[in-house]
Amino acid sequence: MRLNSHPAGRHFLQIPGPTNVPDRILRAMDYPTIDHRGPEFNALAKKVLRSARQIFQTKQPVIIFPASGTGAWEAALVNTLSPGDLVLMWETGHFASLWKKMAEKLGIKSEFMGGDWRKPADPEAIEKRLKEDTGHAIKAVCIVHNETSTGVVSDISAVRQAIDSAKHPALLLVDTISSLGSVDYRHDAWGVDVTVAGSQKGLMLPPGLSFNAVSEKAIEASKSSKMVKAFWNWDEMLTANANGWFPYTPATNLLYGLSEACDMLLEEGLDAVFARHTRHAEATRAAVTAWGLEILCSDPKAYSGSLTAIVMPEGHDADAFRKVALENFNMSLGQGLTKVAGKVFRIGHLGDFNDLMLMGTLSGVEMALGLARVPHKAGGVQAALTYLRDTAPGARNG
Amino acid sequence: MRLNSHPAGRHFLQIPGPTNVPDRILRAMDYPTIDHRGPEFNALAKKVLRSARQIFQTKQPVIIFPASGTGAWEAALVNTLSPGDLVLMWETGHFASLWKKMAEKLGIKSEFMGGDWRKPADPEAIEKRLKEDTGHAIKAVCIVHNETSTGVVSDISAVRQAIDSAKHPALLLVDTISSLGSVDYRHDAWGVDVTVAGSQKGLMLPPGLSFNAVSEKAIEASKSSKMVKAFWNWDEMLTANANGWFPYTPATNLLYGLSEACDMLLEEGLDAVFARHTRHAEATRAAVTAWGLEILCSDPKAYSGSLTAIVMPEGHDADAFRKVALENFNMSLGQGLTKVAGKVFRIGHLGDFNDLMLMGTLSGVEMALGLARVPHKAGGVQAALTYLRDTAPGARNG
Amino acid sequence: MRLNSHPAGRHFLQIPGPTNVPDRILRAMDYPTIDHRGPEFNALAKKVLRSARQIFQTKQPVIIFPASGTGAWEAALVNTLSPGDLVLMWETGHFASLWKKMAEKLGIKSEFMGGDWRKPADPEAIEKRLKEDTGHAIKAVCIVHNETSTGVVSDISAVRQAIDSAKHPALLLVDTISSLGSVDYRHDAWGVDVTVAGSQKGLMLPPGLSFNAVSEKAIEASKSSKMVKAFWNWDEMLTANANGWFPYTPATNLLYGLSEACDMLLEEGLDAVFARHTRHAEATRAAVTAWGLEILCSDPKAYSGSLTAIVMPEGHDADAFRKVALENFNMSLGQGLTKVAGKVFRIGHLGDFNDLMLMGTLSGVEMALGLARVPHKAGGVQAALTYLRDTAPGARNG
Amino acid sequence: MRLNSHPAGRHFLQIPGPTNVPDRILRAMDYPTIDHRGPEFNALAKKVLRSARQIFQTKQPVIIFPASGTGAWEAALVNTLSPGDLVLMWETGHFASLWKKMAEKLGIKSEFMGGDWRKPADPEAIEKRLKEDTGHAIKAVCIVHNETSTGVVSDISAVRQAIDSAKHPALLLVDTISSLGSVDYRHDAWGVDVTVAGSQKGLMLPPGLSFNAVSEKAIEASKSSKMVKAFWNWDEMLTANANGWFPYTPATNLLYGLSEACDMLLEEGLDAVFARHTRHAEATRAAVTAWGLEILCSDPKAYSGSLTAIVMPEGHDADAFRKVALENFNMSLGQGLTKVAGKVFRIGHLGDFNDLMLMGTLSGVEMALGLARVPHKAGGVQAALTYLRDTAPGARNG
Repeated sequence: MRLNSHPAGRHFLQIPGPTNVPDRILRAMDYPTIDHRGPEFNALAKKVLRSARQIFQTKQPVIIFPASGTGAWEAALVNTLSPGDLVLMWETGHFASLWKKMAEKLGIKSEFMGGDWRKPADPEAIEKRLKEDTGHAIKAVCIVHNETSTGVVSDISAVRQAIDSAKHPALLLVDTISSLGSVDYRHDAWGVDVTVAGSQKGLMLPPGLSFNAVSEKAIEASKSSKMVKAFWNWDEMLTANANGWFPYTPATNLLYGLSEACDMLLEEGLDAVFARHTRHAEATRAAVTAWGLEILCSDPKAYSGSLTAIVMPEGHDADAFRKVALENFNMSLGQGLTKVAGKVFRIGHLGDFNDLMLMGTLSGVEMALGLARVPHKAGGVQAALTYLRDTAPGARNG
Repeated sequence: MRLNSHPAGRHFLQIPGPTNVPDRILRAMDYPTIDHRGPEFNALAKKVLRSARQIFQTKQPVIIFPASGTGAWEAALVNTLSPGDLVLMWETGHFASLWKKMAEKLGIKSEFMGGDWRKPADPEAIEKRLKEDTGHAIKAVCIVHNETSTGVVSDISAVRQAIDSAKHPALLLVDTISSLGSVDYRHDAWGVDVTVAGSQKGLMLPPGLSFNAVSEKAIEASKSSKMVKAFWNWDEMLTANANGWFPYTPATNLLYGLSEACDMLLEEGLDAVFARHTRHAEATRAAVTAWGLEILCSDPKAYSGSLTAIVMPEGHDADAFRKVALENFNMSLGQGLTKVAGKVFRIGHLGDFNDLMLMGTLSGVEMALGLARVPHKAGGVQAALTYLRDTAPGARNG
Repeated sequence: MRLNSHPAGRHFLQIPGPTNVPDRILRAMDYPTIDHRGPEFNALAKKVLRSARQIFQTKQPVIIFPASGTGAWEAALVNTLSPGDLVLMWETGHFASLWKKMAEKLGIKSEFMGGDWRKPADPEAIEKRLKEDTGHAIKAVCIVHNETSTGVVSDISAVRQAIDSAKHPALLLVDTISSLGSVDYRHDAWGVDVTVAGSQKGLMLPPGLSFNAVSEKAIEASKSSKMVKAFWNWDEMLTANANGWFPYTPATNLLYGLSEACDMLLEEGLDAVFARHTRHAEATRAAVTAWGLEILCSDPKAYSGSLTAIVMPEGHDADAFRKVALENFNMSLGQGLTKVAGKVFRIGHLGDFNDLMLMGTLSGVEMALGLARVPHKAGGVQAALTYLRDTAPGARNG
Repeated sequence: MRLNSHPAGRHFLQIPGPTNVPDRILRAMDYPTIDHRGPEFNALAKKVLRSARQIFQTKQPVIIFPASGTGAWEAALVNTLSPGDLVLMWETGHFASLWKKMAEKLGIKSEFMGGDWRKPADPEAIEKRLKEDTGHAIKAVCIVHNETSTGVVSDISAVRQAIDSAKHPALLLVDTISSLGSVDYRHDAWGVDVTVAGSQKGLMLPPGLSFNAVSEKAIEASKSSKMVKAFWNWDEMLTANANGWFPYTPATNLLYGLSEACDMLLEEGLDAVFARHTRHAEATRAAVTAWGLEILCSDPKAYSGSLTAIVMPEGHDADAFRKVALENFNMSLGQGLTKVAGKVFRIGHLGDFNDLMLMGTLSGVEMALGLARVPHKAGGVQAALTYLRDTAPGARNG
């Protein structure tokens, strides 16, 4: 079958991940697989294990699984907890809910706080709840940093402070699947115990790698964990990784790509990468506001740098609108999931992305809004254009 | 050296060629070279020699040189003419002028008509001139179909009629370097004797292949041509090509790409390809008009489907503007050449291109006009957006 | 870092997997990732889910995990069994032992029969053991079809008959990681309940995909399984797959490659693929015999088509020898594992492979034997050459 | 069409060029084309123009044409000579003859010395002839360094000395199409005026680039050349190249590859590259001698490092033999050309090549000799193996 059957010109993959994989990464991945027990692989492994730490902003180990992101959720839970343990989770949206469901399937009890998909986790409420837990029944607090289904960012540093203020020993497990490499995230500085991530968003890779960055406390916890596990077991990974090896066959070609992805992010500079995403998110919101549409995230402090979820006007189906965008403009937009299915669409503006790709994206949205007869004001594209122009390097220097 | 050193996101290569090479073609070219004297190559050669005819809309041979476009100009001249022959050329712009200079270097006399770079060739003037040439000193009429330096399209069918009306035996040689595969062009129906083309524009390939589609009359003329030639000699090419071979080493990997390029154009359908280009050109002009800028081409019937050249307001340097676009928005625009250097910039909207790529392109132009403080009205992007939306498939069907 | 840093010419990757990934598959994988919730992906998914069945020779579902092969072992166990269940495993070698260790980690009891790494599983012994198990404590029989650490093939059809003769309800779980697509294997005809496979051997892909082909009985068993599981859960996979979707992000680019791999195997024809492997294995053994070295597999009926393990003469270290081969001849050979570490080396002759690649491989072995001063007779390469020549198509037809 | 339709495993492309293009070069070429008038291209051009000089071992300019090798022959002649000029050429084989035919087509008179295709050019005879040419009618001496049709290397340094001893002002033009990057060649040290080369042999690239390295004397000669020329004109090339530009569209993607090719050769070191080729040629001849077959080149001092031409025993057709090799063993061998058609076949052992690729190649030859019932002794492969083993790094260090 023809894998590139869509119409003329490049596809605009503007879902909030997988993202547009840059040529440099595709070319790096396109080499024949090598012996994962040979010296050439060993050098590669040491390099990516070292570079990955820089991306997570940690000096502690980053474990790389040859599996897609869902696996890293599972690994975080099964390595640190035991059957029947209680975890405190915050319902920021669809993916927080999926993580909770997974915990339940794995025999872990979970308590779900929050539930307003338009708002981030509330550190004060968490602190309060932890203080009540005087018996320390709660073993971990699980937060999605950047909720991919809603475009809402929770303040991880504040959650850490809440745990500390409550003097509670719970571990802090954080999902950064759609923020790592796009939105500022600091595993060490924010005192996170397990960071969960995947390859196909800010890392600009195809899906197939997932990550656990771990703290010393998390490793300590893993030693008394009673969850059965094999593939996800940190222990053998950490032992083998220490010498640049893996306990079972790694996803070699994706590691080629990861090496290149880390180089690209570090060459650009993490601060520059985050600033680029923040600016594109701002431009996107300028467009949404000009269209007179509503951003799902109701808290401006919690706006996401990697995606923007937009509420459809009453009586209009987001999926019908997305189909118009795909069929007319060769652009994929993200769908609304579960609670907001049909009511929300999402624009991914993360990964290997720039001003003109964003302008193409927003133009596609504005045109599709018109074709789909979704009530909106013209001028969104113009508003974004003005913002991008006025914040371009040439304007700042000018 | 790092060949992909530009900033995040895809580069917008909006010069009027080379164009954005699609992934499908890059992947096709990326196979190891094969024996150009083996059966696998033979099948490839027969296929591309056959497919190429469909793109030129001819049943006659298409000769493929392992050389860039300038070579096909030379081949057209040295195969059909003799030293001291006179050719009639029309000065549509920079490339017509270069072709004339080449003729002179090759010892061919040339008479240059026209000279208004904003207008196409005038068939009536050509007819008049040919009628005066009662001695048939003029051996060929040379026209650039789509002048890449100006975005002006000449009416080749009308030039053919002019030659016929004058009952003049001159050959008709046509440069389609920036029109083939983008703007409707019919080698047979329009009675062209030699069509000159290159790989790196509408064919969406990298540079390195050039073409002569030939008529029976041109082949006949080649038999009495007295120009010395070796590499460019049609004779050996036609003999070898008849059995699917080449007289010297062909550019195998570019032929892989050509095979794919022809498939892509024919799958989309030539009419659909031309309509796509026409629509994008129209949208571009809607933007230019809204900006209050001037299109170089002064004759609306001669507007080009593959590029638009835009006149800079007095006192503003086009190259300074282009530099702003490149440095701020990662987009390459075409420069003004010789007579219009610094006065004109060109937007290429040809090849593997679609609506959102065009919107990104026009957004980049509008933002760069702002940053470079080029006087213009806002609203160009909006005008193009409105046009594209109202002519999208979903609008037409709706 | 440079990912292709080895010396001039192509590397010979002659470990028993990962195998030499063919250009056609690398190019197929090298396309930008697409939306895994869009129509283009849906068509791809349906295609690969259908094609994969042909490779496993089954009409039943094949589940594809975005994970490397070890994961498919885990999936086979956790979907069909419950904590404390007893499984009967046959120790064919290192990988059978690893699978057993995994079962234990997962809380499954296992009984290990066999233990002679030079022989295949013994169906009669299995039948005897199952007949003794009148209480049906044994819930599954686990066999490695082609033991990658030894090059010994067990007769799966005979094991099935043993279970049937014993009238025992145990499930039959089979690891085909290094046989699928190389050695004849028939999921349906042989009555296998779960077939475990990976992408990086006979399927000629990089690591990163793993497979469970399942029987109706296995699915039935999964409904009463009490193992906790999430990522590896068949249930959600089967439900989503039925419509061409996946419950969580699939490894899209590896699926591109899988589509191409299935096409390649089916175009060549599975019988031709198996015959090719059988012939290369025979040629390899001709060389080993001529060298006067010993093949690890002691039962000629159990010789593997995909790899040959060779016993080093006393006092010679296999790893020192492999290092000589790598450093002098740019060839990776497989190491001896655990019980046979240092005592055995393995030649992989599977995947995208042909006569001249095998001759290069065997030449490298013979030269390295010489350089490493391993006692051997000359003439192994000559013996293989004679065999391949006399069994080439031209010899058979001649 | 499927461009990779041959059977399982890698094709062995053992013609004396095009050669096996390494992955590193294919990946480098596989990037989208960039603006050949932009700063990124400018940096690339400067780099390749500089690196190319190192490969030609010259400090003088190297001109790169976007055309295949035949074009560089033409460029060498038309830039340095005038119509009716006399050149002295030495008939080493088919390609020397083609170059002579080209000179004639271009209106240049040529005198052909030699004619024994089994021997190199004779510097003494050249010196004698030049001394007779007291009127200096001879304007250039044209020699093929490594005759691709025969595998015979002429001593260019000795030819230079012959010209100097004769105190003759003739230019020295040398074809290095199948020696550059494979056989030691020194443009400056050997006093060559124009070196002709192509991309698809020792440079490991696909066809499509050709080269003229020039001397100051050659440039001086070009100023009084009266040959008509345009595409091949050095003058505009040198002017534009001085600033890192090209006068017309360059073959951008092949320049990406050239950059990588130069890096690869220089990383390995030219001396190491030449030694590698010499060793492989020696091993090949060991095989031929053991087979009891005759090497076409009758002068051991003139043996080629890049290819070996082998004489078929009487009554056996080389092309029938080559067909057997292709159809049975997926290997392309070089055919005999014109004078030696059907009588000779050629093994290319140049470019990105190593010991095991050579052993695969020679095995294919030996097996095909058997299948085609060509009389020969067994043991050629064994002889090459012994030679390679005994000269491997591990043997030399051992």
